[in-house]
Amino acid sequence: MTERAFHLLLDTVERLLRRQASSHLVKVLKKTHPADLARLIQQLPESHAYTVFNLLPDVETAAGVLSEMEPVFRKEFLQNVTLERLVEILSAMPDDNRAELLGDMPEEFRQNILNLMPEEDKEEVNELLQYAEDTAGRIMTGEFVALPESMTARKAIQEVRQASAHEMVFYLYVTDEKGRLSGVLSLRQLVTAADETPLSEIMIRDVVKVHVADDQEEVARIVSRYNLLAVPVVDEEEILVGIVTVDDVVDVLREEATEDILKMAGVPGEDTGTFSLLRSVKTRLPWLFATWIGGVINVQLIGGFERFFREKLLVFAAMAAFIPIILGMGGNVGTQSLSLKVRGLATGHLDPKSLWKEMFREIQVGFILGITYGILLGIVGLFMTNSAIIGLIVGIAISANMTLAALVGTFLPLMAARFRIDPAVASGPFVATSMDILGLTIYFATASFFIFRYAN
Amino acid sequence: MTERAFHLLLDTVERLLRRQASSHLVKVLKKTHPADLARLIQQLPESHAYTVFNLLPDVETAAGVLSEMEPVFRKEFLQNVTLERLVEILSAMPDDNRAELLGDMPEEFRQNILNLMPEEDKEEVNELLQYAEDTAGRIMTGEFVALPESMTARKAIQEVRQASAHEMVFYLYVTDEKGRLSGVLSLRQLVTAADETPLSEIMIRDVVKVHVADDQEEVARIVSRYNLLAVPVVDEEEILVGIVTVDDVVDVLREEATEDILKMAGVPGEDTGTFSLLRSVKTRLPWLFATWIGGVINVQLIGGFERFFREKLLVFAAMAAFIPIILGMGGNVGTQSLSLKVRGLATGHLDPKSLWKEMFREIQVGFILGITYGILLGIVGLFMTNSAIIGLIVGIAISANMTLAALVGTFLPLMAARFRIDPAVASGPFVATSMDILGLTIYFATASFFIFRYAN
Repeated sequence: MTERAFHLLLDTVERLLRRQASSHLVKVLKKTHPADLARLIQQLPESHAYTVFNLLPDVETAAGVLSEMEPVFRKEFLQNVTLERLVEILSAMPDDNRAELLGDMPEEFRQNILNLMPEEDKEEVNELLQYAEDTAGRIMTGEFVALPESMTARKAIQEVRQASAHEMVFYLYVTDEKGRLSGVLSLRQLVTAADETPLSEIMIRDVVKVHVADDQEEVARIVSRYNLLAVPVVDEEEILVGIVTVDDVVDVLREEATEDILKMAGVPGEDTGTFSLLRSVKTRLPWLFATWIGGVINVQLIGGFERFFREKLLVFAAMAAFIPIILGMGGNVGTQSLSLKVRGLATGHLDPKSLWKEMFREIQVGFILGITYGILLGIVGLFMTNSAIIGLIVGIAISANMTLAALVGTFLPLMAARFRIDPAVASGPFVATSMDILGLTIYFATASFFIFRYAN
Repeated sequence: MTERAFHLLLDTVERLLRRQASSHLVKVLKKTHPADLARLIQQLPESHAYTVFNLLPDVETAAGVLSEMEPVFRKEFLQNVTLERLVEILSAMPDDNRAELLGDMPEEFRQNILNLMPEEDKEEVNELLQYAEDTAGRIMTGEFVALPESMTARKAIQEVRQASAHEMVFYLYVTDEKGRLSGVLSLRQLVTAADETPLSEIMIRDVVKVHVADDQEEVARIVSRYNLLAVPVVDEEEILVGIVTVDDVVDVLREEATEDILKMAGVPGEDTGTFSLLRSVKTRLPWLFATWIGGVINVQLIGGFERFFREKLLVFAAMAAFIPIILGMGGNVGTQSLSLKVRGLATGHLDPKSLWKEMFREIQVGFILGITYGILLGIVGLFMTNSAIIGLIVGIAISANMTLAALVGTFLPLMAARFRIDPAVASGPFVATSMDILGLTIYFATASFFIFRYAN
């Protein structure tokens, strides 16, 4: 559905809702894809959203809609759906989506639902929920086709025909007598093989796989690197327990990209787009505190230097005018380095082990950038203040600050990655603020040094 | 291959290269996946990289390796591969990868290669290259299975068996007598259908599709929204001309996320990780210029106010100490808003049409955040300077600046999206700098107003 078609749908649904034309509305909803219905519900005012949700043609559609909703929105939305209806919908959902949905809910809410669910579904959910959040075990599905090594190609094709209840049969996994993953073959390889060939002869033995405890980012990296449609998940004993499909990987990639960008800007991982006003404020307020604390330290710093320069207040005042440009340029170079490294690490292009090599490289880049803008600012400073000494000070300070910023912007994310901390966290307001404090210190240290020599 | 296994491989290959143990090396390379080989080559020193590349077991592997290389690295790497070898490798590559590789190369280089290629391949490449960069037409492949509506399920299965040369047969597209896309079915639906059913009876008629000129981001959004493995591409006459597969979409998603993060930091879209030192400098230098120009304007601004306050130089000096915190907090809130909106737009969660609604919301968030930190800073200012008037000024200035920054951070990306400009572009150094200038103006305007009243 194109953007235009979606807006047309939104307009139509809003009109039908106003006219309370339910039977008409049901017809429209029936023809719409669950993904579009989810988007529609998210954009409608609350009461209308529930009306539409209750008019969905069947539980399968409702299950699809819930699976496609933004998790943050869904969490709030489910508060007003009756438990009975929810249990019914959950039973029509693939196991991985069901576990994801329940994993997001508060503990108590989840228990209430689990208690109402059939024993079998309950076990399935608990099996997936035993794995930590954001791991392969948590996002995998137990719905896959695994066949014994000795089966023939013809028999296998029959099995696949019968396995139509399973979601997306694209690779067929082959297991040994203990259930351990021993090979893989694609449906294409199977349909093109001679009828009586045993699977062990046509399967590929070198299977790319992940372990239940692997991080979902690692899973995404592997699926993307090897261009897979699904990757098998094994437990500690190499027993095949599930698969992660590429559609989940696409979701992980989207999610991680959003997370990284928001983390770097100092907003916690979740999308606040649908939050209430106060909740938005509460989410963003604490992240500003790092900047605030740093800013207060800077007020103190500048105040201290002002007292130090009390005899030369005009010099101090002239120098104060250069504070924003020196901090701004340092911040900017630092953010450039930071972003390059964070993305390099995220795409696997950069190796945390190359810390020293990268730092050596960045110090050169930072130095050349710094010298360039240092000379420029020195000249501008000279002409603006008519003082060679101030020109010299600001030129040196901006060069030193830009070089150091490039270094800090490289060091922090790579160091974080080495200690297995998400490098994007390093890049929030905390770093910007530290660089400000550093920049001011460099600036005034340079100034004290030269003005002291000059005064003598 | 795990990270540890990869490092082991890297160590082994380096050791074998030093010992010039070619036959041993060839054995190791033979067992390694092309994606890992590509990564290996990228991490080796230049001369070793070519040695490994020349020892690859066959052209198919070499084709896989080139397809998996980072485009920026590949462009440089290919300069030193002979045209004859390259043509041979290209003939073993799927058409979409071939077009992507050639599309990246300089015009002259591409023409030289095309002239050496067999007529058929040449036509295929030119067909894909006629579409603009980053469109569906450019990333699609012409290798897909399309069957006529009247064919039976059994016949179709035979066709698929024979079509094993095609890459990834997961959906079967059904076309009418004019070649127009009329339906789709999955291989699973086909193998589970009764033998004599005509395809027109089992196919799904409501096909999700894209047009050749659609942006690749739009293609990625559709594949991700509808959880597809491939999406058909049609031309203006609705004739099926290609498909975009999910592995390409995964690449697009990775690419776009990197681009957005780098754009927001003021680095052009390409990953400079493999650039030479001077090239890195040349890439980053101009993006710092916006900050520099803005910074010089700020120097002028502050200088102007210094002259204005010449009679009250001590007041000016005290006020100067608060410049970094006021600009820093504004910059931070602005970046938060900006990032939230940029990602909201990228994920399709936010609609550019809701500009006014979003601005109304952000002005409230910004105001509450501003007031909170304004009161805090007012108190700090009062105690630090022992001046109620300075406390008042800094408190009001920071509140006003934070509110305005939230507004600017919302307005720019949404406005950009309305004019179909990439919103991430709006978020670079240019915006940070504009917000600095705005913040200073607000600060000194507030100060002039109060000090003027206070003086009288």
